Amino acid sequence: MKIQLALDRMEIDEAIELTKKVEDSIDWIEIGTSLIKEFGMTSVRAMKKAFPNKTIVADIKTIDNARYEFEMCFEAGADVATVMGVSPLVTIDICMDVAKRYNKFVMIDLLNTTEQQKRELLKYSDAVFCEHVSKDQQEELGAANQGTMKSDLYTPDITIAAAGGITLDSLDTLRKSLNPEIVIIGSAITKAENPTEAAAKFKQVEVK
Amino acid sequence: MKIQLALDRMEIDEAIELTKKVEDSIDWIEIGTSLIKEFGMTSVRAMKKAFPNKTIVADIKTIDNARYEFEMCFEAGADVATVMGVSPLVTIDICMDVAKRYNKFVMIDLLNTTEQQKRELLKYSDAVFCEHVSKDQQEELGAANQGTMKSDLYTPDITIAAAGGITLDSLDTLRKSLNPEIVIIGSAITKAENPTEAAAKFKQVEVK
Repeated sequence: MKIQLALDRMEIDEAIELTKKVEDSIDWIEIGTSLIKEFGMTSVRAMKKAFPNKTIVADIKTIDNARYEFEMCFEAGADVATVMGVSPLVTIDICMDVAKRYNKFVMIDLLNTTEQQKRELLKYSDAVFCEHVSKDQQEELGAANQGTMKSDLYTPDITIAAAGGITLDSLDTLRKSLNPEIVIIGSAITKAENPTEAAAKFKQVEVK
Repeated sequence: MKIQLALDRMEIDEAIELTKKVEDSIDWIEIGTSLIKEFGMTSVRAMKKAFPNKTIVADIKTIDNARYEFEMCFEAGADVATVMGVSPLVTIDICMDVAKRYNKFVMIDLLNTTEQQKRELLKYSDAVFCEHVSKDQQEELGAANQGTMKSDLYTPDITIAAAGGITLDSLDTLRKSLNPEIVIIGSAITKAENPTEAAAKFKQVEVK
């Protein structure tokens, strides 16, 4: 299990400082969509420069203009970029092509996809599939990704990630139900009183 | 009919220079998603500063984190911000709320929405509904928004926009079939040999 730290709703300097405090416990660093839309590619370049040995995920949430956006992310230093599963499939085709050419990776964000759409997406077996309960669904509806998702869709060759309100408490259940290879943790680390300690606790689960 | 100039895949300075050449012929200025993702809110602030009397559309394509993203756009000077119709409805609810609070507008991008989703979205009758054929669909599949869309879904109180490969040639058909109040024009102006002249020709159609 890998831990992807999601950095959202903060300044770039803040993201760097926070990541320094937890970097020993996390594997992948996600530059959140809010950082990209607020600061542009500067955010990706700054994080790659500060953490050259970490896997950098640009959560760009592409839904069109895939070649331009994915090339932009990879040129800025991202190792993984995200595309929405609700996009037209032609957009995801392009993401896969660009990632292959750069020897980088695609994460498909499954937010609000139907079962039927997920099945259609399974052909992109080189991508990471991210089961995602959105911030708005969490904050307004109290929803969270607590492992109630069906995993029987995924064959063992599919790499699964999970995101959305995951806490230390919910992680066990989530591992049992979905067994994601990558767990994406945001506020449970970034908003913790002691982020270093919080991240270390997730790391303990990881190595169990 | 209003003309919304879509600015994409260019530097901010280029966007300003280009808009200066055509500003007499256009009504709304769209800061394209590619500008926002590449340069962040700097792009919105710069365009509002350069064109304080134009309606500024931030094509932020929100699909989550709606409050943060919409407040960010309106604080940066946008008059309209976009949300994806394929989002969870809770996200669109938030966009409507934030826009109302700021006395600004929401444009719902209908890219890849089903007929059923469109029907569910019609309750947001204060929003602009944007029928959208994506760049990737245009470039890879040769699709374009040429007025083949069904307009019988929309009651007369709904404000309709149309985007995606619209040319001077296709505009007549589009007006007959969908009769959009806002037509979104990108490359037919920005990539024209003479953008000023191209924009003026669209303006002529507008006043007809």
